[in-house]
Amino acid sequence: MNKNKNVVWHNTEINLDMREKQNHHKGIVIWFTGLSGSGKSTVATELQKALFERGCNVYILDGDNVRHGLNSDLGFSEEDREENIRRIGEVAKLFMESGTITLCSFISPFRKDRDKIRNNLPIGRFIETYIDAPLDICEKRDPKGLYKKARNGEIKDFTGINSPYEKPENPELIIQTFKYSLEENVIQIIEYLEKNGYI
Amino acid sequence: MNKNKNVVWHNTEINLDMREKQNHHKGIVIWFTGLSGSGKSTVATELQKALFERGCNVYILDGDNVRHGLNSDLGFSEEDREENIRRIGEVAKLFMESGTITLCSFISPFRKDRDKIRNNLPIGRFIETYIDAPLDICEKRDPKGLYKKARNGEIKDFTGINSPYEKPENPELIIQTFKYSLEENVIQIIEYLEKNGYI
Repeated sequence: MNKNKNVVWHNTEINLDMREKQNHHKGIVIWFTGLSGSGKSTVATELQKALFERGCNVYILDGDNVRHGLNSDLGFSEEDREENIRRIGEVAKLFMESGTITLCSFISPFRKDRDKIRNNLPIGRFIETYIDAPLDICEKRDPKGLYKKARNGEIKDFTGINSPYEKPENPELIIQTFKYSLEENVIQIIEYLEKNGYI
Repeated sequence: MNKNKNVVWHNTEINLDMREKQNHHKGIVIWFTGLSGSGKSTVATELQKALFERGCNVYILDGDNVRHGLNSDLGFSEEDREENIRRIGEVAKLFMESGTITLCSFISPFRKDRDKIRNNLPIGRFIETYIDAPLDICEKRDPKGLYKKARNGEIKDFTGINSPYEKPENPELIIQTFKYSLEENVIQIIEYLEKNGYI
């Protein structure tokens, strides 16, 4: 109770629940993790299109819009990589709280970094999505020529070559880009979101 | 032109223009600057409510959701304060790019820091909003008891007491919280947004 009788209390906070009712979908973080070349960005981009066309508020956070802006002060040391992922997790949380379906596309090779982001979000808001493709297929695709550079020793600590990738142990989704078409990958995610009442 | 004839090029990017058409409003950053106690958060909160009720995508970035998360590693040194505002500007840019009306409520006392954020955004996307209230009124309000602490020497570098506040020179909006009611303040902003085709 407000003790000052002269003050009329306006409850003007807009909370997540109100946003979700207005948007007709939940605020969530879909976290795409997987090797370079596994198809994370391709799946995220196509999923964004499908969700946008349904009228959802959806946004992608990826290296393109984060590394050159928010995290432009960070390098590739172990400490900086951890801080890179930490900040992305915090920004994803803000987007989730704004009611957005937030698609995060980052290799994010370490389980502990991903688990920190999960634990920083309310239960059910973090949808860990493992983009599964064997290393040899990713290396053949090599869309950015990075595997070649890593094999030549031009890039050190490259995930899958000379730095480990830790697969998710219990991801909400496993998307096999080497086995199914892009359309099938997107349908699998959409069906998961529908079935669990997210959209 | 894609040289590989076997690749069907899908233009699947969702750009800001498409988002704005779907939302029926622009993606912008409304940057509230002013002394502690000037009414930044009060105006931002009430404006958010009014815009939300019109069906806009609107979100507030402020000390509450940024200092304890994204910027929890930063202290109050000059360097850290600058980095604090820089990161907020980058996050605001991401929200703007997602099509959100992004309300930023921070004392942000230095012109150069605010100008950096303006210059980092496309023209017309940064609406600098000076929340104007005289120091003696802010100090009388003292909603968080901070002025008292600053006067007692418990807080050093407190804006307005022992650290300067640099008024915006050409802000898009000047909102006088000591002269007009909260409702009038919000109407002034809404009318500005309508007149300039933002909403």
